[in-house]
Amino acid sequence: MRKSNKIVFITVFLFVPALSAMCKALQKVEKWGRYEISFNHISNGNPFVDDTLTAIFIQNEKNIVVRGFYDGNGLYALRFMPCETGLWTYKTRSNVDELNGISGSFACVDPSGNNHGPVRIRKQYHFTYADGTHFYPFGTTCYSFLHQADPQSEIALNQLINSPFNKIRFCVFPQSQDYTDFNPPYLPFAKITTEKNPGDSTAWDYKTLNPVFFRNLEKRIDELAAQGIEADIILFHPYDEGCWGFDKMSHETDLFYLRYLVARLASFRNVWWSLANEYDFLNAKSLTDWEYLIAAIASDDPYKHLCSIHNGKRYYENWNPNLSHASIQNGALVEDFGRAVILRDAYHKPIIYDEVCYEGDILRRWGNLSGEELTHRFWQGMIAGTYVGHGEAIVGSDSVLHLIYGRELRGQAPSRIQFLKNFIEKTGALEPVDKFWKAYNVAVSEKGDVVVYFGAGKMSEWSFSLTRDLRVPDGTKYEVEVIDTWNMTITPTMKTFVTVLKDGVIKDVENKAIRLPNKKYLAIWMRKVTKI
Amino acid sequence: MRKSNKIVFITVFLFVPALSAMCKALQKVEKWGRYEISFNHISNGNPFVDDTLTAIFIQNEKNIVVRGFYDGNGLYALRFMPCETGLWTYKTRSNVDELNGISGSFACVDPSGNNHGPVRIRKQYHFTYADGTHFYPFGTTCYSFLHQADPQSEIALNQLINSPFNKIRFCVFPQSQDYTDFNPPYLPFAKITTEKNPGDSTAWDYKTLNPVFFRNLEKRIDELAAQGIEADIILFHPYDEGCWGFDKMSHETDLFYLRYLVARLASFRNVWWSLANEYDFLNAKSLTDWEYLIAAIASDDPYKHLCSIHNGKRYYENWNPNLSHASIQNGALVEDFGRAVILRDAYHKPIIYDEVCYEGDILRRWGNLSGEELTHRFWQGMIAGTYVGHGEAIVGSDSVLHLIYGRELRGQAPSRIQFLKNFIEKTGALEPVDKFWKAYNVAVSEKGDVVVYFGAGKMSEWSFSLTRDLRVPDGTKYEVEVIDTWNMTITPTMKTFVTVLKDGVIKDVENKAIRLPNKKYLAIWMRKVTKI
Repeated sequence: MRKSNKIVFITVFLFVPALSAMCKALQKVEKWGRYEISFNHISNGNPFVDDTLTAIFIQNEKNIVVRGFYDGNGLYALRFMPCETGLWTYKTRSNVDELNGISGSFACVDPSGNNHGPVRIRKQYHFTYADGTHFYPFGTTCYSFLHQADPQSEIALNQLINSPFNKIRFCVFPQSQDYTDFNPPYLPFAKITTEKNPGDSTAWDYKTLNPVFFRNLEKRIDELAAQGIEADIILFHPYDEGCWGFDKMSHETDLFYLRYLVARLASFRNVWWSLANEYDFLNAKSLTDWEYLIAAIASDDPYKHLCSIHNGKRYYENWNPNLSHASIQNGALVEDFGRAVILRDAYHKPIIYDEVCYEGDILRRWGNLSGEELTHRFWQGMIAGTYVGHGEAIVGSDSVLHLIYGRELRGQAPSRIQFLKNFIEKTGALEPVDKFWKAYNVAVSEKGDVVVYFGAGKMSEWSFSLTRDLRVPDGTKYEVEVIDTWNMTITPTMKTFVTVLKDGVIKDVENKAIRLPNKKYLAIWMRKVTKI
Repeated sequence: MRKSNKIVFITVFLFVPALSAMCKALQKVEKWGRYEISFNHISNGNPFVDDTLTAIFIQNEKNIVVRGFYDGNGLYALRFMPCETGLWTYKTRSNVDELNGISGSFACVDPSGNNHGPVRIRKQYHFTYADGTHFYPFGTTCYSFLHQADPQSEIALNQLINSPFNKIRFCVFPQSQDYTDFNPPYLPFAKITTEKNPGDSTAWDYKTLNPVFFRNLEKRIDELAAQGIEADIILFHPYDEGCWGFDKMSHETDLFYLRYLVARLASFRNVWWSLANEYDFLNAKSLTDWEYLIAAIASDDPYKHLCSIHNGKRYYENWNPNLSHASIQNGALVEDFGRAVILRDAYHKPIIYDEVCYEGDILRRWGNLSGEELTHRFWQGMIAGTYVGHGEAIVGSDSVLHLIYGRELRGQAPSRIQFLKNFIEKTGALEPVDKFWKAYNVAVSEKGDVVVYFGAGKMSEWSFSLTRDLRVPDGTKYEVEVIDTWNMTITPTMKTFVTVLKDGVIKDVENKAIRLPNKKYLAIWMRKVTKI
């Protein structure tokens, strides 16, 4: 035990604003809310490195150990996300006498508002909030969302609120690329200014974190949570370009940073861990390094937030059991029928195609999809039982890309993505019907609705003909509506199909067909009639 | 140690016929040949179950332990495949005194004839014989190859010799399906005839194997080896249909059978282990059962023969490190561009699409591809850096399918497969150039030749335009030949392309194009000119 004669002072922060005053009555925290305790203490050494602090939170047979962290200015904190209502007690453990053995309790109460808990995996390939509300990821990417000062950051958040997107991928470390600003307002480590080389921007005290940086990060995550937006946080990336050196830290520093981050953020319910963007372009790290980093998160995060690692050209070993889903970069896989489903079948996990090229007008080949093409890629993913992510690289007069800072959305895809999202929220998750026998454009919803997507081929008629693998009894009835995915219309046809299995194919008993408006990007929604 | 007073008699069989006589001189066995020792002994119990026998073979620092087996009629045998030339010594270990501690030695000499050793993985996605000779798997499937009597079996072998196929998938256990005969000449276990139910074909003494069955299997494998054909042996399958019950044995019996088989066959250099056909249709086995069976092979096979497990509808966890490659059933993946490569990228292993539907004329949807379509699928696989397997379900007047017994080949695909095989042997293995950016039909050979395959679209002209990911210096020269994959012609064009990188695309310096004969199934072979 490290000794100290400093006075210990205990403050308690609660996440329910009405109860934030200190009081002797049992404090209340929402289920999936955040309980925070903090302690003042002046360390004898480097408080980030030398002082340990954990607490065990107990409810009946449940024992959850969380790591505390040093928050600067002599403040140590511990955070906990209760996942069960009722009384919780805790007791701290520390190598500093004054922080050791402190105990207390609080009451966990029902969640309120848009608090549905963290997102989990559902039915192997899909997602749900912990309270059972289905979640369909419609994410966007704004790499430098964090690295802008307050007024811009607010604009970005407002833009996000008024978009279809319920998930955002952004980087912890700043990036130095086209369209980025070299001067982010905060940086994660303490700067070292050496006399020898005063302008060296890569000289950091890697044993001293900058709590101000992390508090800003946390503020953003909470703002997102308040709007029901998941934070898919990119923990490492290869876009440093020698500016700060955060892509080339030692493995020990990587782990030190990661465990500090997890100690601070695991109690935020809307956090997803994204180990990296384009992990395979981070040349300083080996596959073994990644395995260790993934394992460190799995061991330190008591809540098992969703966790993935995003590839550049080489897919990661997505079968790693600590990865909840595969976060894939590859536009080709949602470009044409029959591809998107293959990775789902290979990994037996949910697939999010987080990067399929962006709607844009820049010269880079990843940044000039048309709105039609990006919308098409969303439908390709959806019909295959997978999910697709958005990004926008349209240069306005201000040269600010949505992809970087997340401010103005200028593209044509977002409104169509909203339309698709509304549709999926009505039908429920889609499952591909048969991946082997040419029914690549047919999916069935959880309610038994059938969706057929026609892609870029113009269609003027469709004869009812479905694979036998749909496995519905003869006489199943469907009401048919025609979807124009680009013009965002759903038009009832007043036709009803009634099934019969004939020669291994499910047909309409009267061999009926429907007229279609001879356009691209159409779909048919066959709503199963449960009662006549 | 189990005791016995019977006389032990040692015989030595060698696989080099000229040396097969017993002699005191040091016996010689080819590298990757088979050294066999056998011992006579009358067991006190059940020799399959109660008597253990292993031997350690030693050369310098190399120590290889092999398991022996009981071969019936009081004969115990041990087999060893030496993978290094020079002197080898051995010593037996057994719980039977008379079989224990026997030692000897032999000389391993250079291989001869078509003995290139067992097949191994090369450059992550391809194959090679152990001696470095490249191996391009062009396999066929004849499930009941083993389960026919001698004259038919010989016809099947001769058919195979005169075909393009250098690998055959066949089942150990007999199958009961359309076009199969219920009466295979040999069965692997001793029959139990109960008075109560004399006609019960599923009553077996699962502790007593039938060596005659296995000797017939071995004879077939050796016949294949003599012709340079790999035996991709299917160890379990779901086509028993209640006839024998071999698909529903206990896990202990499965393991017992498997370890006996491995003890007998591991020393055959042309053996590949295929855990199952359509493993997921074997309802009596769980994923854990398969994991154990795969691990048993890995632990008992000292030579690490290629090992895979073939799926029905659900891909196996092909990332299992004991699986050398993924043996895939899925026709859709080689039906159109951009799909075949995805599993390769997912698993980071060689992919053999062993079942992509068959050329045939039967009603089953898996058995009625045209010769054109099956040939196309072979090219689709090849252009993606993967391999494709053949099967034929064309019913002749005798109702014998090649797919079942491997006798007469009636299809149009085999000659085209031979053409493709000759081509690949000339170019070397193909690697896809770029899987993300629409160059799905372009591959590059190890020599730097570029192959473009056009599939089912008719082509009358092609402008030289290649992805920058080919990464060749400006001024690289190619001589262009046009391949008609169906009519099996390679026609020089007398044109030479000279590269220049322009706007991110590799073009010809003079923007040259070539005329093509406006047909389906064409390809272009651009042979890199290394010296002018």
